[in-house]
This record gives sequence, C-alpha cells and structure tokens, in this order.
Amino acid sequence: MPLAIGVDIGGTKVLAGVVDDEGVILARDRAPTPRADAAATEAVIARLVASLRETFPGAVGVGVGAAAWLGPDRSTVLFSPHLAWRNVRIREALAAVLPLPVCVENDANAAAWGEFRFGGGRGLDSICCLTIGTGLGGGLVLDGRLYRGAGGMAGEPGHMTLVPGGRLCACGKSGCWEMYASGRALARDAQQLATESPAAAAAMLARAGSIADLDGPVVTAAAADGDPAAQAICAAMGRWLGRGMANVAALVDPAVFLVGGGVSAAGEMLLAPAREELDAEMPGRLYRPAPLVRQATLGADAGLIGAADLARVEFS
Amino acid sequence: MPLAIGVDIGGTKVLAGVVDDEGVILARDRAPTPRADAAATEAVIARLVASLRETFPGAVGVGVGAAAWLGPDRSTVLFSPHLAWRNVRIREALAAVLPLPVCVENDANAAAWGEFRFGGGRGLDSICCLTIGTGLGGGLVLDGRLYRGAGGMAGEPGHMTLVPGGRLCACGKSGCWEMYASGRALARDAQQLATESPAAAAAMLARAGSIADLDGPVVTAAAADGDPAAQAICAAMGRWLGRGMANVAALVDPAVFLVGGGVSAAGEMLLAPAREELDAEMPGRLYRPAPLVRQATLGADAGLIGAADLARVEFS
Repeated sequence: MPLAIGVDIGGTKVLAGVVDDEGVILARDRAPTPRADAAATEAVIARLVASLRETFPGAVGVGVGAAAWLGPDRSTVLFSPHLAWRNVRIREALAAVLPLPVCVENDANAAAWGEFRFGGGRGLDSICCLTIGTGLGGGLVLDGRLYRGAGGMAGEPGHMTLVPGGRLCACGKSGCWEMYASGRALARDAQQLATESPAAAAAMLARAGSIADLDGPVVTAAAADGDPAAQAICAAMGRWLGRGMANVAALVDPAVFLVGGGVSAAGEMLLAPAREELDAEMPGRLYRPAPLVRQATLGADAGLIGAADLARVEFS
Repeated sequence: MPLAIGVDIGGTKVLAGVVDDEGVILARDRAPTPRADAAATEAVIARLVASLRETFPGAVGVGVGAAAWLGPDRSTVLFSPHLAWRNVRIREALAAVLPLPVCVENDANAAAWGEFRFGGGRGLDSICCLTIGTGLGGGLVLDGRLYRGAGGMAGEPGHMTLVPGGRLCACGKSGCWEMYASGRALARDAQQLATESPAAAAAMLARAGSIADLDGPVVTAAAADGDPAAQAICAAMGRWLGRGMANVAALVDPAVFLVGGGVSAAGEMLLAPAREELDAEMPGRLYRPAPLVRQATLGADAGLIGAADLARVEFS
C-alpha cells in the first residue's frame, strides 16, 4: 500500500499528513506559515516531512499544495497573494531540502483532485470544486484529469466577471464573482446592514461585538442559529453563487459543483438558493439535467489529501 | 493513408467531403438541408456519402457534425434549434442508412477539433474556438482532447451571462454573451443606428436597401470598405467579445481563442478590440501571459474536416 505525504500551505498555516491510497490520513502535523520568508517556509515543510517520516518511513513522495499561481510546468511560482514566493523555482527549492521526490500543485487544484478521488466527486468524470473562504477559489477535474490550463492558471472562477461595472475587487477589476460569493461578501453585506439598521443586525452584532468584527463566520453561525437577517444574507449569496455556476455550466458542463471552504458550513442555506438559481439560469435548461450542487466532503483536509494523492500517482 | 468522410449538417445546407489524414479535402459535395424532416435529412447524408464513395471507396468511416445538442454518449440528439431531430437515436439512424461506421458530434465541437488538428490551433494543447455566425457557438479542446462535458453540453459560451438583466435572448435568459457578440448583435446595432440616425447609417443602408435587410454580413462588408459607422459597430462588438473571453480565460485558461464563423470576416476590426479588452479584463494580468486571439483558419470547412478526423481516429 503506497503511502504519500501531503502538504497544504495556506496563508496562515501549513498542514501536513501521511495519506494512504484510499485517501485516509494516517498521521498529521501542522505549523504556522512564515509569511515573509520563503526559505523559512521551505524549512517548515522539511521539518514537518521529517517528523512524519519517523513514523512512516515508507512514503513514496511529497505532494505540496500551495496558495500560489504555478506555471504550466508545475515547478515555478509565478505569484502568490499570501505567500513569500515570487518567481521561485519552487519544485527545485523543495527538492533541495526534502529527502523524497516532490511535486507541487495549486492548493485549490489539489483540493479538487482530493474531492474527485476520495470525496464528493468520487465516481464522476468532470467536476468543478468551488472553495469559499475569504475569497472564491476553484479547481476543475475534467474527464478524469486535473485540468490546469495552457498557462497553468485555469480554475480561477472567482475572477470571472459577474456584474460588469460592479463592486471593486482587490484584483483590480470590478464585478468579480468573488465580490458577491465569498466570506468577504458575507461580511460586507452584514456590516452594511449593521450600519444602516443596527436593530435588524442585532443578533449578528451581539455575536461579533462590533461592526468591524462582523465577518463571514459570524454570519454563517448566526444564520445556523436561526437569525433571519443572517439567513437572508446567506440566501442572497447563494443566489449569486448559482448565477456564477450557470456561467461555468454553460462552458464546462460539470457533473457536479462541490462547494467547500469555511463558508460552505452554511450548507443548504447557501446551496438551496444556489441550486434554484443555477436551474433557472442554465442554458438549455429544458433539454438537459442540471449539474448537481453538493457540499464538498473532505473539509479542510481536501488539499492535503489531494496533494498526497498526486504525489502517490506520480512517484509510486 | 486512411481517408474519412466528413459531413457538416447546418440549418440550411449539408456539406460533405473526403478528407485525408492531413486535413485536406480531396472531394466535396453539398445539398440543402431538409429542415422539417429527419428521415429526409438522413437520406440526403446517405446520398452524399454514396456519391463520394464512388470516387474514394477506401474511406474508413463517416463523421457527422450536426447543429444539435448530443447526449454524452454521442448517440442521441437531445435538441436542435435548427434541425428536425428531437430525442432521436441519431447514430443508430445513420448507421442504418450508411455503408460505413459512423460517429456523430456537435458541429461546433467538430469545428474546434478541426482547428486543433489542422488549423489555427495546431501545435497547441488547449484551445477555445468561438464561432460567430448568427449566434455565438464554441468548442473546447483541452489538454489535447475534445472536451464534451459531463452531460455532453460543454462549450456553449454564447449563453454565459455577460450582462445580468441585459438583452433578452431567444434561449429565454437575458444578457447572454451571444446577444452582444454575434451577427444578430451587429444587425441589431446597425438597425438601431439606422432607425435613429439614417444619415449616420447611410453607407450601410445603401448596401442593404432597407433597415430590415441590414444584417451582419452588410455591417462587416461596409466596415471592410471603410464606413466609420460600421467600423464603430464592429469595434464595440469586439470589446464585448473580449469581455466574454476574459471570463472564459479565468476558468479554462486556453492557449488561444480562435474566432471563426461568418462575422470573423471582420478580422482585426473585431479581434484587435477583443484582444485589448481581454488583456484589460483578464484575472492576474500582471502575472501571466494573455491567451492569444486569432482568426480561425479553416473557414466554413472546419466542421467537415474535424468530423472526418474524428471518424478517422475512431475507425482506422
């Protein structure tokens, strides 16, 4: 049974684990991400891998999922909004500090691969994973293969324009899908409501303490507790989610949309309106089944599990 | 040298040809499409194939590209806006009247495959073809494979929503990309200009004869002759084209957009503004090369050539 080590490097923490060929994590470890320092990040990865190998020396390789844009060769980080790497030959740098062969993948792609192999996409050929945290990320597995795009940059649905001339996005464009379907969008809507009508937002405000602390997790938690204002905000976001899904479906026609990330904790409060909107807005809806809309099943481990499996496939 | 016969069934005509393994058409024939009658359409195909086989008896199979939505098995027509087939087991029906093995493909997919193998996409791995005629069709070849989608319906970019709440589309939605980038869009803009300001539209009106006859080909021809009003209409459409391309690029990141169909005769008048808008609207444009934007090279033969090649690959 070939084992592999998966590493998921996010903006705040590095997760690492030993994963078997059924996607089960046999051991895990974690550390904070040294954000400002690329060499320190590589050292953290090396330390985590070394520690896991003490118990599982037989792992065949290391798969690293990173919140970064990689070139099509999967060896060079072109850009990362949250990590210290810039135009770094990351695969070489990691190979120099690791005792095992290493492959690198975009974290959302790794998560999509994990869901495809062992999660909500198991048994389906073509899936679109949408990861809703602070922003909206994504990954595509098409006809059973991880699809990376000609330049390595496929699967950035969050920056498809949903509303021309709409809300300004940090990416420099306006009206990006991410500005309407993300933790940041939930927070903005809740803060706006609290500013305009503190009474209507009282339950969320009580939970957050202040308008400035009213973030996505506060909204989803208040909605889960039955706060109608928070539920309305989640439902509105669900409809935006479904609108963007309809655009993806027109182009890529996946069997399923798997929704993961912190905001997906809202579950059906989010997914039911998304499904409705997708059904209404999908091209040719009278003549075809709509793609399914489901919650992703691997949670925060999807990236780690997927990265490990990519390494297992490549090196065993 | 294995030869195959390609057939391209459009709303008005059926094209057929014998194609070699370098995409060269060795013989060709054509007939009007019997629109109201599925059996008659099948008989026309059989007649064209029989006639071509008299000269080239060695063809290994027939590939049929049809303006229709096919199920994922490529055997059943689910719907076609222009042809007589409805829920027809088309592959079986054609197999019954043809003396050679037959495969069926959506016409835009077949055209994309033709461009990928022998046209503007040769040598590239992932391409997006956009066919601009009356409407806006498309096809995707991703990582060297024709991508059809989980339900067989991938590559309908014309019905991605570009402008929420925008112009009503025949599909029942509003704001579809096709309503802003198609021959129909050119005609509508030109007719509107001619209605509001006959003087500004004088050159186009003189060419068309009447406002009602002011169609896409009139606009592109007038633009090619230097009419500033027609050129402005083409440029505006080019910008809409580029906006939609940016959405496709965010998701699929193709190496190239190949623009074909009748409206693509406008060439750089259309493609230059599309390229500019794509460059401006593409996510992460500072950190990645933009996909290329080029005219497709096989013209009206792309579907026929691609369908033949799909048959050659499947049956030889």
